[in-house]
Amino acid sequence: MTTVGFIGLGAMGAPMAWNLDDAGFDLVVYNRTTDREQPFAEAGVSVADSPKHLTKRADVVCCIVSDGDAVAELLERDLGVLEGVDQDTTVVQMSTIGYAETMAAADLVTEAGGRFVDAPVSGTVGPAEDGTLVGLAGGETEVVEDVRPILDAMCEPVVHCGEVGQGTNMKLFVNLLLGDAMAAFAEALVFGRASGLDVETMRTVVSNGALDCPLFDSKGGTIADGDFAPRFPVDYQFKDLSLALDRAGEVGAPLSQTAAARESFSAARARGHGGEDMAAVIQPMEETAGVEAREE
Amino acid sequence: MTTVGFIGLGAMGAPMAWNLDDAGFDLVVYNRTTDREQPFAEAGVSVADSPKHLTKRADVVCCIVSDGDAVAELLERDLGVLEGVDQDTTVVQMSTIGYAETMAAADLVTEAGGRFVDAPVSGTVGPAEDGTLVGLAGGETEVVEDVRPILDAMCEPVVHCGEVGQGTNMKLFVNLLLGDAMAAFAEALVFGRASGLDVETMRTVVSNGALDCPLFDSKGGTIADGDFAPRFPVDYQFKDLSLALDRAGEVGAPLSQTAAARESFSAARARGHGGEDMAAVIQPMEETAGVEAREE
Amino acid sequence: MTTVGFIGLGAMGAPMAWNLDDAGFDLVVYNRTTDREQPFAEAGVSVADSPKHLTKRADVVCCIVSDGDAVAELLERDLGVLEGVDQDTTVVQMSTIGYAETMAAADLVTEAGGRFVDAPVSGTVGPAEDGTLVGLAGGETEVVEDVRPILDAMCEPVVHCGEVGQGTNMKLFVNLLLGDAMAAFAEALVFGRASGLDVETMRTVVSNGALDCPLFDSKGGTIADGDFAPRFPVDYQFKDLSLALDRAGEVGAPLSQTAAARESFSAARARGHGGEDMAAVIQPMEETAGVEAREE
Amino acid sequence: MTTVGFIGLGAMGAPMAWNLDDAGFDLVVYNRTTDREQPFAEAGVSVADSPKHLTKRADVVCCIVSDGDAVAELLERDLGVLEGVDQDTTVVQMSTIGYAETMAAADLVTEAGGRFVDAPVSGTVGPAEDGTLVGLAGGETEVVEDVRPILDAMCEPVVHCGEVGQGTNMKLFVNLLLGDAMAAFAEALVFGRASGLDVETMRTVVSNGALDCPLFDSKGGTIADGDFAPRFPVDYQFKDLSLALDRAGEVGAPLSQTAAARESFSAARARGHGGEDMAAVIQPMEETAGVEAREE
Repeated sequence: MTTVGFIGLGAMGAPMAWNLDDAGFDLVVYNRTTDREQPFAEAGVSVADSPKHLTKRADVVCCIVSDGDAVAELLERDLGVLEGVDQDTTVVQMSTIGYAETMAAADLVTEAGGRFVDAPVSGTVGPAEDGTLVGLAGGETEVVEDVRPILDAMCEPVVHCGEVGQGTNMKLFVNLLLGDAMAAFAEALVFGRASGLDVETMRTVVSNGALDCPLFDSKGGTIADGDFAPRFPVDYQFKDLSLALDRAGEVGAPLSQTAAARESFSAARARGHGGEDMAAVIQPMEETAGVEAREE
Repeated sequence: MTTVGFIGLGAMGAPMAWNLDDAGFDLVVYNRTTDREQPFAEAGVSVADSPKHLTKRADVVCCIVSDGDAVAELLERDLGVLEGVDQDTTVVQMSTIGYAETMAAADLVTEAGGRFVDAPVSGTVGPAEDGTLVGLAGGETEVVEDVRPILDAMCEPVVHCGEVGQGTNMKLFVNLLLGDAMAAFAEALVFGRASGLDVETMRTVVSNGALDCPLFDSKGGTIADGDFAPRFPVDYQFKDLSLALDRAGEVGAPLSQTAAARESFSAARARGHGGEDMAAVIQPMEETAGVEAREE
Repeated sequence: MTTVGFIGLGAMGAPMAWNLDDAGFDLVVYNRTTDREQPFAEAGVSVADSPKHLTKRADVVCCIVSDGDAVAELLERDLGVLEGVDQDTTVVQMSTIGYAETMAAADLVTEAGGRFVDAPVSGTVGPAEDGTLVGLAGGETEVVEDVRPILDAMCEPVVHCGEVGQGTNMKLFVNLLLGDAMAAFAEALVFGRASGLDVETMRTVVSNGALDCPLFDSKGGTIADGDFAPRFPVDYQFKDLSLALDRAGEVGAPLSQTAAARESFSAARARGHGGEDMAAVIQPMEETAGVEAREE
Repeated sequence: MTTVGFIGLGAMGAPMAWNLDDAGFDLVVYNRTTDREQPFAEAGVSVADSPKHLTKRADVVCCIVSDGDAVAELLERDLGVLEGVDQDTTVVQMSTIGYAETMAAADLVTEAGGRFVDAPVSGTVGPAEDGTLVGLAGGETEVVEDVRPILDAMCEPVVHCGEVGQGTNMKLFVNLLLGDAMAAFAEALVFGRASGLDVETMRTVVSNGALDCPLFDSKGGTIADGDFAPRFPVDYQFKDLSLALDRAGEVGAPLSQTAAARESFSAARARGHGGEDMAAVIQPMEETAGVEAREE
């Protein structure tokens, strides 16, 4: 049976790991802070002392951590995933990081003799729990097929996006579109409110048109409720738009609207909403326009 | 029985007028050029010599023409709708025009003794034919209720957005969001293509995510096919974003992302794509980035 | 001797008219409100009852009023400049208005038998008093040369920019650049302050570099002093950027950065700074970033 | 006598090093490729085998290289500046790199026992030859004063901008403003050309107004001549705007206009103008608008 190592038991990682456990994989987990490992230990899941030990034991090592620095640290320095890698190891990098960071990680793993797939996921905590994240896999077809049963335990669908790095590019594509759409929706709502329209009526109209989609439905609702509890926080959306713009600069795709969206999220961070849900991008816009989209 | 006058038998207006005819209203039509009136005459529908005569005959006068100047011309000058207005006339202005233009038209009609509803519609030719346009009505509740059976013949749903002018504001809200979303989708696709992603795979991912919506589904398809036959042309989207930004300036809602989107549509016009579908906003972006989203 | 009519005795117009008087022209003035005419009457300058009477008396009619609507009202309706125009009249339109508005005014004057020059001026109250405004003249060479002595009394230099309309386009060009530069300077200062730099040191560096110019020198000083008394108010700069973007849309010049600048001025208006100096564009940026560029 | 080490003999570095030599300092130089060292060797200047050896010999080590990676490589890895650093060494980092990169370099030097000043310079090759670069120094007052004679040999003025890192922030401030102003000037010229104005006339008007400055004077001239030989290339300006936006994101200063400017430079890169002068930012704008600012 395949032994799967899972590093990073955060809000996303924990339910993903549970899904691997439920699917019957021989699971070994690791988290930087031990409190997040506790429930797994209590349920009889193996807990590794270090990423290096985890890697030595596992056939496939999945990791989902906060950013590119955290991935680099996992692989190199004290954390030593690389020291544990051998020719039977496949590393599945699931964090949302930059393209250059992905390729650097892939090179390190490959040089250490292992195989590499980048497979960031699209979706929030709900889909993570339900196993319905969209898995965005980049890697050689054979390698992606080998790890597909593992990805299938966490994701539905799993989309093979191309060679190594293309999973990451697809994730940047998705979150670029998500960020642009969220900030555009916020601008539209503020325009409407400043013009005297009612949020509920605007929502009705959107839901009857060509832009009827889960994002506008859910964010319209939480904005109307004044509920900015984080599903996907402003800080993360800002990070992802920054990564996408970095990459766009490298590949020669000027993105003026995306650049404007990034600055809108930057404003939300500057006004103290970085930890709130991405829908909080509307808040500085409301302040400036002197309106509120919150329902009475 | 209510006599309905209908002015403007263009791509949208003609099917809307047919729906009024099908619904059994006593219909009288007018178009600036007679060729568009011909099929109605042949089907036994009354054709008026002038907007003034049409207005004299009708209880309710609907008009859907190209822009605010055309509406002003209809009401004043030679075309003389106003001369035909009396206390039993209700004018239903369905063209997409600016807020100030709407209010000016409303004032003229009201001063002439008539009643006024602004009821622009959201949707393209297909929904116009099917009677499933989204009707966005602004006016006093009593007046909107009086004309609702007429709107119902052309629209489903009919949304009462508020007092006079709010139908127009809602239309600007909808098309602002539409334009922003279209241009953002174009940026995302160009980013993806420049990064090595395949359009079909990007479409699959979008259709599995929080932005799954008719717009991205249909425009993704036509872009992949290189089909820019106009459903809603770049020129109209540019006009509507310009109107929205004018209005936003008046009500104090700064819209940096919408402003960027307008310039993207301006680029498409400058490159000769003004008469093509709004999805052609992608074409100058592709030229600059040196990529194509068209499927092989 | 040439009789010069001057309409519009505002902050700019009054000193311009005094300069005409000082230059020895036979002057007749008009202002919508009589209080602004009083000092001229007291100094023995003729005051006309109406624009129509002024035009009948004058060989050359200069006007500088608030916007395109005010110009249209002067020419048509009750104010009747056009009724006073004959084949010996030259109208010199000096207000900053849109290109389409300029051409419409030119057409009206020409149809009434008169000659037309558009000659908006660049500069603020100081240069208006000193007669050192930059005069931006559009019209046939012969006509511009005929009125040049009059312009020379108010301006130095007078630049002939091309045929009718090009004075207006040049004014839009100048104020587009001015607005963009002002908002960019504000962004740079806020960036610097947020990064821990001192305004006075930033000013020293700018004054030693390739961007050493009167605008940054003076606005840097007033910003450091927290002095936002209007030389050229935010509202006017916003209007001029809006006119430039309208015109840019017509001629097919997409201007993404100018579009962003317009929204920055829109934010300043929305936050109540519309009547303050254009440098107040920095204030919403400071609020968002939580910094102040004001010196202690 | 102070021994000065100078690393990086590129287009900027070489004349700066000659100025140190002319000022009578005991100079030792190093360049990654030996051809750039040759003229110095021929003139009797010491040439070091490696950055490490240079650092061992020198009291003050100046470096000006291409980017943050090059600086990191100089300090660490094979190049070994750090190995040569002792308590008598002061490193003066003059390259334009990011704030985080500067602070990382400062930490490394300080940990190795040395002292650190960041002193990027503003100006192009001409001022580098004339010794009139604007030196932007960040560091403790005592350390900056100690190296001021060295900076004075290359710069006039030398501006002490604050503690370590503030020289870098000031450089980002300057180049942010420069990039914004350049792209805004390009937009204005394209607007004017598309509106029928003549470049030479626009230049005359700018030179008579509040934005009369060396940048617009020189770039207006080279654009009119179609001369895009690089003084400061598009690629560098793009890099510096990217660094400034990164930093702005960290300190919470949303910069929508600067973000738009970055995308304009990105477009110039995408169209193959990355190695040309920053004024080439106008070229994709001209292509889109279908105009040319080049004089006949």
